[in-house]
Amino acid sequence: MTSDTQAKVIFTPSGKRGTVPVGTTVLSAARSLGVDLDSVCGGRGICSKCQIAPSYGTFSKHGVTVDENALSPQNAVEDRYDRIRGLKPGRRLGCQAQILGDIVLDVPPESQVHRQVVRKAATARAITMAPATRLYLVDVAEPDMHSPTGDLERLRTALAAQWDVTDLSVPNHILPRLQPILRKGKWQVTLAVHHDHTGTAPQLIDLWPGFYEGGLFGLAVDLGSTTIAAHLCDLSTGEVVESAGIMNPQIRFGEDLMSRVSYAMMHPGGDREMTAAVREALNELAKSLCTDASIDPQSVVELTVVCNPVMHHLLLGIDPVELGQAPFALAVSDAVNMGATDLNLSAINAGAQAYILPCIAGHVGADAAAVALSEEPQKSEDLVLIVDVGTNAEILLGDQERVLACSSPTGPAFEGAQISSGQRAAPGAIERVEIDPVTKEPRFRVIGSDLWSDDPEFDQAVATTGITGICGSGIIEAVAEMRMAGLLDASGLIGGAEQTGTPRCIPEGRTHAYVLHDGRAEGGPLITVTQGDIRAIQLAKSALYAGARLLMDEMNVDRVDRVVLAGAFGAHISAKHAMVLGMIPDVPLDKVLSAGNAAGTGARVALCNIDARREIETVVRQIHKIETAIEPRFQEHFVNANALPHAVDPFPELAKVVTLPNPSFNAHGGDDEGRGGRRRRRAR
Amino acid sequence: MTSDTQAKVIFTPSGKRGTVPVGTTVLSAARSLGVDLDSVCGGRGICSKCQIAPSYGTFSKHGVTVDENALSPQNAVEDRYDRIRGLKPGRRLGCQAQILGDIVLDVPPESQVHRQVVRKAATARAITMAPATRLYLVDVAEPDMHSPTGDLERLRTALAAQWDVTDLSVPNHILPRLQPILRKGKWQVTLAVHHDHTGTAPQLIDLWPGFYEGGLFGLAVDLGSTTIAAHLCDLSTGEVVESAGIMNPQIRFGEDLMSRVSYAMMHPGGDREMTAAVREALNELAKSLCTDASIDPQSVVELTVVCNPVMHHLLLGIDPVELGQAPFALAVSDAVNMGATDLNLSAINAGAQAYILPCIAGHVGADAAAVALSEEPQKSEDLVLIVDVGTNAEILLGDQERVLACSSPTGPAFEGAQISSGQRAAPGAIERVEIDPVTKEPRFRVIGSDLWSDDPEFDQAVATTGITGICGSGIIEAVAEMRMAGLLDASGLIGGAEQTGTPRCIPEGRTHAYVLHDGRAEGGPLITVTQGDIRAIQLAKSALYAGARLLMDEMNVDRVDRVVLAGAFGAHISAKHAMVLGMIPDVPLDKVLSAGNAAGTGARVALCNIDARREIETVVRQIHKIETAIEPRFQEHFVNANALPHAVDPFPELAKVVTLPNPSFNAHGGDDEGRGGRRRRRAR
Repeated sequence: MTSDTQAKVIFTPSGKRGTVPVGTTVLSAARSLGVDLDSVCGGRGICSKCQIAPSYGTFSKHGVTVDENALSPQNAVEDRYDRIRGLKPGRRLGCQAQILGDIVLDVPPESQVHRQVVRKAATARAITMAPATRLYLVDVAEPDMHSPTGDLERLRTALAAQWDVTDLSVPNHILPRLQPILRKGKWQVTLAVHHDHTGTAPQLIDLWPGFYEGGLFGLAVDLGSTTIAAHLCDLSTGEVVESAGIMNPQIRFGEDLMSRVSYAMMHPGGDREMTAAVREALNELAKSLCTDASIDPQSVVELTVVCNPVMHHLLLGIDPVELGQAPFALAVSDAVNMGATDLNLSAINAGAQAYILPCIAGHVGADAAAVALSEEPQKSEDLVLIVDVGTNAEILLGDQERVLACSSPTGPAFEGAQISSGQRAAPGAIERVEIDPVTKEPRFRVIGSDLWSDDPEFDQAVATTGITGICGSGIIEAVAEMRMAGLLDASGLIGGAEQTGTPRCIPEGRTHAYVLHDGRAEGGPLITVTQGDIRAIQLAKSALYAGARLLMDEMNVDRVDRVVLAGAFGAHISAKHAMVLGMIPDVPLDKVLSAGNAAGTGARVALCNIDARREIETVVRQIHKIETAIEPRFQEHFVNANALPHAVDPFPELAKVVTLPNPSFNAHGGDDEGRGGRRRRRAR
Repeated sequence: MTSDTQAKVIFTPSGKRGTVPVGTTVLSAARSLGVDLDSVCGGRGICSKCQIAPSYGTFSKHGVTVDENALSPQNAVEDRYDRIRGLKPGRRLGCQAQILGDIVLDVPPESQVHRQVVRKAATARAITMAPATRLYLVDVAEPDMHSPTGDLERLRTALAAQWDVTDLSVPNHILPRLQPILRKGKWQVTLAVHHDHTGTAPQLIDLWPGFYEGGLFGLAVDLGSTTIAAHLCDLSTGEVVESAGIMNPQIRFGEDLMSRVSYAMMHPGGDREMTAAVREALNELAKSLCTDASIDPQSVVELTVVCNPVMHHLLLGIDPVELGQAPFALAVSDAVNMGATDLNLSAINAGAQAYILPCIAGHVGADAAAVALSEEPQKSEDLVLIVDVGTNAEILLGDQERVLACSSPTGPAFEGAQISSGQRAAPGAIERVEIDPVTKEPRFRVIGSDLWSDDPEFDQAVATTGITGICGSGIIEAVAEMRMAGLLDASGLIGGAEQTGTPRCIPEGRTHAYVLHDGRAEGGPLITVTQGDIRAIQLAKSALYAGARLLMDEMNVDRVDRVVLAGAFGAHISAKHAMVLGMIPDVPLDKVLSAGNAAGTGARVALCNIDARREIETVVRQIHKIETAIEPRFQEHFVNANALPHAVDPFPELAKVVTLPNPSFNAHGGDDEGRGGRRRRRAR
């Protein structure tokens, strides 16, 4: 032991160490040494957040003798806690256990405020918890007639004295509740306080009488043109307790962004209709998430929102008309902090705070910023192309040195819209397709079953859902497979039965269509891929490719090292088929990664960690934006990318493509040569 | 001249002086020397706020030669301004005139931001203008696709660069209007920016395309239990452009404060009813003030409110129940800054900011704070007693060394309520009374006429209003005159006709009443002062006196140097009669001053000057509060003060009192001796 009056202490995993007076509680020692040990009750033995695990004896290898008397014995408060709630073996309450001798103390992850949350995707970085809103148990002085101050002023004084949180700002809606709650809690209350990352005063979100045992939750919202998706997250653990998605009700005003901008232009008050619709939908989504997770909606105290600029403006109640014409001026580009009630979100806590990520440019929104936050191209050592595929594609290209961004108007074809048999990704939708290059016969899988359609048990497996249509990933695979099976030429023209040798190629007007599934005998639909479908996919993929190409030109490179497909839909795209279609530049197949809903993940990162908000606000300012809409080379790339390349390909995985059985009934598009032949050195 | 390249300049009246490069504009010179010279357009020759008057030649006595070429000649911008608006002789636009040689420049009051506003009352200090909200003309950079930032961000950048106002906070309701206004103004806009005195970020209140020529206005509101009064003030000049008062509609829930607290206790949701009622009334008052003054309600960007604690809580939507019982805990005592929309004031600018003055204690409200702001006892060299008489009386006693405060529940008798023939101070109400000590005949004046009732033309003068009742000041004079005429004894008992020798003393039940006016023959009312009226006034004046006495005890003094009667009603009380009644401690009559509506003035000071807000927040913390409701000595003083003292009086002005013709039909009250005999030395 160091001395009779001083003890050495080492905290793991931080490694922070120091000497404290004998008799110091573990919590006090942690605080004085800057160790990340959680506490809501401030050492009152109530919250149990400060649990630690002493490691007796292991300290000796550091040259110090340690014995089991280095901590005070379990006391009455701990006994009571153990009896009522159960204390894990080996655990102690940090606010009760006193340090009596030299000791090593482990802070388990659940006792750390800034614990790390491991994300499911293997490639993704962990989220470090640093939520904006924290709970504080506070004992408030009772009123004294002879020294009259308001209850609020005494609450502020107590919070400052007990937690060092000063200048608390209290929203007006809380004032009427203050006095009854203080009295109900017998002058002990738990405060939920929001600490803004921009340096504005901490704000009281809500308060509860006595010790509040409910958790705090937040919503990470990915507000897309077509779909609104949200994660309900525990703000203490970072855990996603519930996720859900609904259609964006603005669809009734226009399928894609520009048609919604047009709607706002053509209909006075149209922007307000769309604002009301999306806010109402968000509110409903919040409500149903809480119901499904059995969470008190009042415990939802924060939300983050990522979205494209048009959705962003409509959410904020701003007419998006300026986004529909050059110079595509955003009304506000910086991150926006506002009360959830300002967004009419009445379903959650009235004090809840919303953080809307910054936009990068008039066509590159907070969703792209969120993708950058999630995928961190600005920290990448190799040159990564990140494509967030939705109704609009957000494209990022870059590495540690420089990041470029643009947005490309792919339209909704990749989401199954504007496709003759298209539908949303829902049970019954064809999502995977293979076509035998010899027989030209297809087999497929539908959402809701793992069986291929040539499996004997398939019919039974899809009996309930039926086979209802084809979703975004299905149509991409279908078109790519048709090309590989020689049913399409490089220009995208579907061959007739006599050219392709299969009766599945049926006439349709002056063109042809390929029959993927004929369910008419059973009262189901005839599902075909029409020439129109091929054209829609060609337009979409050309836009996507042209955007990526434009960034590569700007970066003065001819190839990228890695492609990340993001977007809810990106998770389901087959890399092989995407490359066959020419959606993305050629890279080795193992360098094409899916990031899942990276925008949604970015929203979740910003929800759990306020440092990430500061970070993305900085990164966004450093990203160089390219405006596709006015860039002549975009049109050029777009036209050149229209063809469906057959591949003289370096990648053996694409062998099927190399051995195209039907070398075509039309000339190749001009792009093939361009893509293969113009490899430049990366010179930046 | 100082040199070929430098010129000396002296600004009057500030006396600030310095040397500037030849060619510097007067506005630039003023800024660099810290001279208070106004400008909204920032030197663009638009606003004309920076007018100055050069004083050629007068500089010579300082030993410097001055000629008329010391300023550049009037330029085209000034010519144009002179032609269109007219420039006063000798005036120049400070942003256009260049300093070419040594010169003295006078900044006239209207060109000073911090000009002084002379108040009408002779005793009152001037108000120095330092309003929270200022106008700034700003040129905003147009959007650039290649360097995309939001319009808001460019607006912020421009404001920071052109006016050094950084970190502008923009409320959400303005966001939708930003883009159209910027474009309408061709990227030039005028901003109204609110600078909080607490150090929070400056906040955008509103913006207008181009140069905004309308003024900015504010409301100073005195929210009383009975009456709501408001001044509409020009925030540039400090001028009161319109004043109005309306009844507080909460009266239907209870005449006095405690009955409203009871209403809230007895009726669930009763507090919310009262909150809604007062907010609606404020809104209507704001609306009608703007209409009467022909002011655009959108130009009203600020309001200040003073009120007692119960009104304060009800205005803020806080149940006042805690104010009805010891320890009389305020929910919030500090000053409150909030948006006017939080108070549902939709009649004025949606960005308008409300400042509600701090409360001193549970029974001593923001109205008392406002009186302190207006009358400044904390700066007084002599010991001043300030009494704000309303339904509740706020009492302040102090000087530079120490200020005490309390509140006393006088009830509404002083306002004509609970008086048999009582009425509000309105045309037709008897406001002045004299009773001949010999004949016992009264004469009086009514509001609406300057004639006494014994004037031959009186009947004609009051033909339209009639004689409808007696108001607060009238009943006080009537009771005091009755006492002086020997119609009352010291206990307050009205003598019968046989005792007093006048048939005007008529029986009323088991007591008597004095007939002031009998209008029954003409279909008017019989106006009497009943025994009940005397008792009501005795209760009210005892409460008032006891409160003052309590503070004097605490201060350990037996007399005060000066009495200030405040309150809309205080303005009309006759000092002589107040002392005869024993409402206030004895002081020489010339030491009794009326401050008019001091609370309203305090509201106006806080409206015009944000430094005053800071000041009153400090002063309030230094005021020592006495809680009358639980102070046993208050009851004692109250009982002792019940009598109507006849005066063995040192003041010759009260000669009539001294020569009371009817030494009484009852024993004197015990208080007379106490008041006369217990003079203590002031020892503090």
